[in-house]
Amino acid sequence: MSDIVLHNYYRSSTSYRVRIALAMKGLSYDYVPHHLRHGEHLEAAYLAVNPQGLVPALIWNDGTLLTQSLAIIEFLDETRPEPPLLPKDPAGRARVRMLAQMIACDIHPVNNLRVLTSLRALFGAGDQDITNWFRHWVNEGFQPLEKMLAASAETGTFCHGEAPGLADICLGAQVTSNARFGVDMTPYPTIARINAACMALPAFQRAAPENQIDAE
Amino acid sequence: MSDIVLHNYYRSSTSYRVRIALAMKGLSYDYVPHHLRHGEHLEAAYLAVNPQGLVPALIWNDGTLLTQSLAIIEFLDETRPEPPLLPKDPAGRARVRMLAQMIACDIHPVNNLRVLTSLRALFGAGDQDITNWFRHWVNEGFQPLEKMLAASAETGTFCHGEAPGLADICLGAQVTSNARFGVDMTPYPTIARINAACMALPAFQRAAPENQIDAE
Repeated sequence: MSDIVLHNYYRSSTSYRVRIALAMKGLSYDYVPHHLRHGEHLEAAYLAVNPQGLVPALIWNDGTLLTQSLAIIEFLDETRPEPPLLPKDPAGRARVRMLAQMIACDIHPVNNLRVLTSLRALFGAGDQDITNWFRHWVNEGFQPLEKMLAASAETGTFCHGEAPGLADICLGAQVTSNARFGVDMTPYPTIARINAACMALPAFQRAAPENQIDAE
Repeated sequence: MSDIVLHNYYRSSTSYRVRIALAMKGLSYDYVPHHLRHGEHLEAAYLAVNPQGLVPALIWNDGTLLTQSLAIIEFLDETRPEPPLLPKDPAGRARVRMLAQMIACDIHPVNNLRVLTSLRALFGAGDQDITNWFRHWVNEGFQPLEKMLAASAETGTFCHGEAPGLADICLGAQVTSNARFGVDMTPYPTIARINAACMALPAFQRAAPENQIDAE
């Protein structure tokens, strides 16, 4: 048994973010899958551990429950500083957090499985409606993200310079999810280039949805 | 003219968060209102400044554009450390960020004005549908938040001990928005108690929607 228990679902974008960070930090963990589409995250045993019933959730070696992927990743970065996932200077840190949150706050939450499920249940949304909805919010977020990345001298091989960090983790996980909904990446050459650089890294590959024990 | 320009909308919950942090840090700023319901944030002049066309956006004194309320607040905290908005210890910081993100990532984005507008346009949602949708996602987030706050010895007068911080800023701004949609706070005594403590503070009062120049 490892020091860290990670409650997860292979296809969850936020789960993928945390797996990338753990892999980049070289941390091993016990992987506990919860099949979201089968509702396994809403079972009483899991709700007793994590009242929100979402994944990812990380149980640290002292029993502490950590949820919310960005909070978990910043915790890993503060307690295991190498390699750093944020720059050292406040302006750089703000830029990386901003880019990360453009995905984590403005794109992903609106396209979450539970929201898509609600659109079907409440408004009778069909498959094409769901696909359009998903693509719309990705495009709303990726258009400014592409502009900001392409315009900034601080953008390098990755979102901020030559080393991958928090923004790249969110970018790679989002682009991976996009593929399931057929998002056209042609208008986003900078995002696509950075994603390719991310996907060439062993940490992103090890953490990829298809390489998890619960992958279907 | 001040060193800081804040692009804002009085009723935006994320705008309110940044105003609270600026007030707590004692920073003055020029306030530039954008009336979201009139689409003023989508005018070319503003998109040239902020490609995402959202508020809040903060132009720092060196011309740097900062968007995303949590990234802005962490930047303010790193560059103006007093009073601190996050604890010093990594576990405490993770807990505060987690509580903040339970609101900022799981509740607010789904209930944003642009999402509600899309529900009307795409699915013919009416006023009651919108109200139900808003309340649903608040309750989905507030139920576990209430449990986690009530169960933790680290909860004090505020979300984390005796001083207000990042989680309280998100909590206060969310509870303020809730009032417009008639969210019943009876099931959330701990959240309501912390909100009352926040609203007694001058910084929360000065930053309140009704005290902004663009309030209607």
